[in-house]
Amino acid sequence: MVADRHAQAEELRRLHHGPHPLVLPNAWDVPSARTFEAAGFPAIATTSAGIATSLGYRDGEEIPRREFVAAIRRIASKLSVPLSADLVAGFGRTPRGVVATVRAAVAAGAVGVNLEDEDPRGSGLLPTRAQEGKIRAVRALGESLGVPIVINARTDALYLGSGTPEERFAEATRRALAYRDAGADCVYPMRLVEKSEIARFVSAVRCPVNVMVRPGIPTLAELEEVGVKRVSFGPAAAYATAGLLRRIGEEVRARGSFETLLTGAITYDELNALAGPAGLTKS
Amino acid sequence: MVADRHAQAEELRRLHHGPHPLVLPNAWDVPSARTFEAAGFPAIATTSAGIATSLGYRDGEEIPRREFVAAIRRIASKLSVPLSADLVAGFGRTPRGVVATVRAAVAAGAVGVNLEDEDPRGSGLLPTRAQEGKIRAVRALGESLGVPIVINARTDALYLGSGTPEERFAEATRRALAYRDAGADCVYPMRLVEKSEIARFVSAVRCPVNVMVRPGIPTLAELEEVGVKRVSFGPAAAYATAGLLRRIGEEVRARGSFETLLTGAITYDELNALAGPAGLTKS
Repeated sequence: MVADRHAQAEELRRLHHGPHPLVLPNAWDVPSARTFEAAGFPAIATTSAGIATSLGYRDGEEIPRREFVAAIRRIASKLSVPLSADLVAGFGRTPRGVVATVRAAVAAGAVGVNLEDEDPRGSGLLPTRAQEGKIRAVRALGESLGVPIVINARTDALYLGSGTPEERFAEATRRALAYRDAGADCVYPMRLVEKSEIARFVSAVRCPVNVMVRPGIPTLAELEEVGVKRVSFGPAAAYATAGLLRRIGEEVRARGSFETLLTGAITYDELNALAGPAGLTKS
Repeated sequence: MVADRHAQAEELRRLHHGPHPLVLPNAWDVPSARTFEAAGFPAIATTSAGIATSLGYRDGEEIPRREFVAAIRRIASKLSVPLSADLVAGFGRTPRGVVATVRAAVAAGAVGVNLEDEDPRGSGLLPTRAQEGKIRAVRALGESLGVPIVINARTDALYLGSGTPEERFAEATRRALAYRDAGADCVYPMRLVEKSEIARFVSAVRCPVNVMVRPGIPTLAELEEVGVKRVSFGPAAAYATAGLLRRIGEEVRARGSFETLLTGAITYDELNALAGPAGLTKS
C-alpha cells in the first residue's frame, strides 16, 4: 500500500512538470470522481466546498474532520489514479494538528494535499510563519511515512491581504515564495483570473502555480502559454450540477415536462458501475 | 417533533389526493434535496440508487443500513417540506427487521417510505404474503409512533414476474391490490411507461399509483389525465448530473475549454446556502 502511494505521489508530482498543465477536476463523491477518471484525467482532486455541502455543512472547517476524511476515503478507495485532497487550512491550529489531518488523509488514500492560509476561525490570513511551519511539518510527515506527499499551498492574500491591489499581489507572491521554500510543490493564489496577472505571478514565484477555473479564466492553451502548471476546477463542477438540478426543477414545475431531466443522462447500469470496483470505468 | 412529523405525514398523504399528481423529485444528498425544495416542490423523496452510489455502493442493500439512514438524516434535517425515503426492500428479511429500518428512517426525519418486493438477495420477487406482512407491520409502527407514515408499495412484478406480459401485468395488479389492502397509501409498479398500460393499471387498483419518470413516459398532463397521483424521478436526476459531469470532462479533455463547466452554474454563496439552516432557500 505504501509502495503504491509512493508511486502515486511521484506520479502526481511528475504531472506538475510536464509540457502541458495538469488539469485536475475536483470531485465531492464517488460518482463525480469516477466520472472524471473515466473521462481520462490522470489524477483527481477533491473540493472541500463540494464535500462539505454534499454532507450538509457549509464550506470551511464546520464539518467534523472524521466525516471529511471518510469522504476522502470513499473516493480514494474507488480510484486507480492519484487523489489530491483539499484539506482547507488543515483542521488544526498547530503544525501537530495539521499533521494529524494529513496523516488521516494519506491513510484514507490521498497522495496530495491543499492547505490554505485563510484562518478558518476568522476572515483574515494566518501568519506566514505559522503556515510555513505547517508545510514543513507536512513535508517531514511525508518523509516519515514514505509517501512523498504533493503539497499545494494556497494563499488567499490576493483578496484577504491589506492595502492596494498591488500590495496584495506583492503579499501573495511573498507568501508563495515562503511556502515554496518551506517545501510546497505548487502554489495556489486564489482569485487570480486575468492572464497578464497570472503571467506576472508565475514569473515571480518560479515554481508550479495552480489556477482555479472560474468565469473569465483564459483558455487552457493560454494558461499553458504563460507557464501555469496546474489548473483545478475548485467547486465549479458542484456549482454546475446544482445549476442543472435547478433547471430540471424549474422545467418540471413550470411546464410539467422532463426534457432537462432525461436529456444527456447516463443509465442505471452506468451509475452502478461508477460505484463498482476501481478501474472498471477507466477509459 | 412527533407533532411536526404527524403534520408532515398528513400533508404528504394529502398530496396524493389532490386534483394534480404529486411530483416528487428524488434527491441523494443535501444540495440536491435543497435545490429541489427551492424550486417549489411540496415534498422531496430520496433515491436509494443515488444515495448508495454517491457513497460508493451499488444500488440495493449492499450499503450498511446505518450509512443509508445517516444519509436520510442529513437530508431530512435540512428540509422544511416532508421527506419520503426509498428504503429498497426494507433491509430486513422479516417484518421485524423492516420495522427497525422504518423506525430508524422516521427517527431520521422521513414521514414516507418506499418498500419494494424484489428480493434484495436474489433476482426474484418476495412472496406476496411476506410483503403484505411487512406493510401491515409498518402501518402498525406508524400508529404506535403517532406518525401516520405514508407507505408507497412498489412491485417489480412487471419485469420480474413469470409468464407473458399479460400474466405479469395481472400479477402486478394482484400484488398492488394486496399491498393496498394491507395498508399501503400508494402503489408503484416499476417499469410502467406506456400511457394506455398506465391507464389500465390505475383503473385496476383504484388507489393512488406512482409512476417513475423515464424515457418514453407521457407528459405530466397526460399522466394526470389517466389518473396517476404520484410521479417520481427515481434516480433520473443522478443520471442527469453524471451525464453533465461526463460532458464537462469530455470538453475539457478534448478541447481544453470550460464552457460546459461554467455555463448555468450556481455561485459559491448559493452552494453554501444549500447547506445552511432549513428554510432559507425556500421559494
